[in-house]
Amino acid sequence: MNNKFNNHLDRLEKILLELMNSTEIPAAKIKEAILYSLFPGGKRIRPLLVYLTGELLDASVDCLDLIAASIELTHCYSLVHDDLPAMDNDDFRRGKPSCHRAFDEATAILAGDGMQALAMEILLTRLPVHLSADNVVAIALELSKASGISGMVSGQSLDLTELSQKAIDEKQLRLIHSLKTGKLIIACINMTIAASNANLIQQQALQSYASHLGLVFQMQDDYFDQYGQPHILGKGRSSDSINQKTTYANLYDQVTLSSLIEEHYLLAKKALSIFGDAAEDLLMLTTLLQNRSKDNEA
Amino acid sequence: MNNKFNNHLDRLEKILLELMNSTEIPAAKIKEAILYSLFPGGKRIRPLLVYLTGELLDASVDCLDLIAASIELTHCYSLVHDDLPAMDNDDFRRGKPSCHRAFDEATAILAGDGMQALAMEILLTRLPVHLSADNVVAIALELSKASGISGMVSGQSLDLTELSQKAIDEKQLRLIHSLKTGKLIIACINMTIAASNANLIQQQALQSYASHLGLVFQMQDDYFDQYGQPHILGKGRSSDSINQKTTYANLYDQVTLSSLIEEHYLLAKKALSIFGDAAEDLLMLTTLLQNRSKDNEA
Repeated sequence: MNNKFNNHLDRLEKILLELMNSTEIPAAKIKEAILYSLFPGGKRIRPLLVYLTGELLDASVDCLDLIAASIELTHCYSLVHDDLPAMDNDDFRRGKPSCHRAFDEATAILAGDGMQALAMEILLTRLPVHLSADNVVAIALELSKASGISGMVSGQSLDLTELSQKAIDEKQLRLIHSLKTGKLIIACINMTIAASNANLIQQQALQSYASHLGLVFQMQDDYFDQYGQPHILGKGRSSDSINQKTTYANLYDQVTLSSLIEEHYLLAKKALSIFGDAAEDLLMLTTLLQNRSKDNEA
Repeated sequence: MNNKFNNHLDRLEKILLELMNSTEIPAAKIKEAILYSLFPGGKRIRPLLVYLTGELLDASVDCLDLIAASIELTHCYSLVHDDLPAMDNDDFRRGKPSCHRAFDEATAILAGDGMQALAMEILLTRLPVHLSADNVVAIALELSKASGISGMVSGQSLDLTELSQKAIDEKQLRLIHSLKTGKLIIACINMTIAASNANLIQQQALQSYASHLGLVFQMQDDYFDQYGQPHILGKGRSSDSINQKTTYANLYDQVTLSSLIEEHYLLAKKALSIFGDAAEDLLMLTTLLQNRSKDNEA
């Protein structure tokens, strides 16, 4: 990622490490497995969205640390569980064996369970120092809704059960991906808004931005899986194509999918226009995401 | 369980069902698997502790409904994950196929993940109607700490890794069970206290009560597994004895273990003495638990 964002990424590493070291974890294996799953990270897009949106809204950076860490913990928990043999059965993640391969299935399940709980725990323990309890409740609720049975959990279930059926249409595909990944992207924005004094127009602009971003990530991933060059490191061959799941690349031809991706990035950027130059960093992140290559998973 | 408690148990069934029906769950399979895991329930000891302690402390019964439901959801999530092949590999639970046998492993993992998130969601959404946000944060934090990496998750990991090693001593065994089950029992009490105006002496008495209760459950289970008559329905042969785990019955002879169990029940009841007759129902529950038979798992 761009140098410009190193400061934010450094803060995230520091807070995640500090949280892990200051939390009592009687089972050494669980601590080891969580550290293994958190570091080194992926592109940390969700935390970056939190930091850049928070800066735009003048939110306290101490709050942003906690919100970013809780979302990254939630995201990593979902990856550890999704990789399990009973789910996507992925042996590799970010160029190294996935958690259940490096440890064992029981440890991967428990590490995921623990990361989910830890995400809540850090918000509920540490945010009250900086924000009113009402805001803490709103922020924690946003995360539990986005990641729970109305969001990510249902998305992953439908991914496993519905996407393999050929008859799926675009509306269903969008719904599944919006549940599986879109809601957590929007939660990045909503949690940050709840830690700031954003007005309604700013809130709506950022939510519109996030919804286009949440939608386009999967389109891009599907495009790369279908048309991009094979890559050596990382996840290995896409488990989606091995499992013959329906993708956006099945529903659209290459040109149409490519212009859909362009269009959503354009709309995402357009949504930020009300902020003028202040949104420069968020626009830069968006452009970097738009120009990412296959190796840079979202 | 005693007729006296039917009112509480009815309330719990009602609130759990209402929560499931009023929550948007796009994946039908997840809804089905969660309902399957929640109903019919076990003895609902944790919810009963919440209701009876709450009555003793004059807490609002609407709050108790939510606290009881969130703890039962958390308890049931842990059972669904513990039963998985990679963990305790139990094919039966409460006289019917365990969740991953009735559905599939992916669904059981996701249903557990979803129940964990739902437990938080209902506290954060519904408790603010009845309590200050500060109290809501305290209650939700209590649950996430007890169930997370400082508590239940570490307990289950140590159960899987340490208990099979022969060299384990009584101190370690107590630690593991206190993490795995004791902390959630104490959380029942602490969450209820946070929804009431209990004074410090009442708080300490109830915490002492809960810590003896949390400890004795496992001693009793181990006693029944070693000396009780085999039972037909339920979990089938204990997976602990199949997996040759260290139990309290390995560390003590029958007479010593039996008197330890007596002693902890006595101390639990004694802790309630400051409440006088007001603790009658809680004492009755304690006596019922003390006199439970092997078929009545805690």
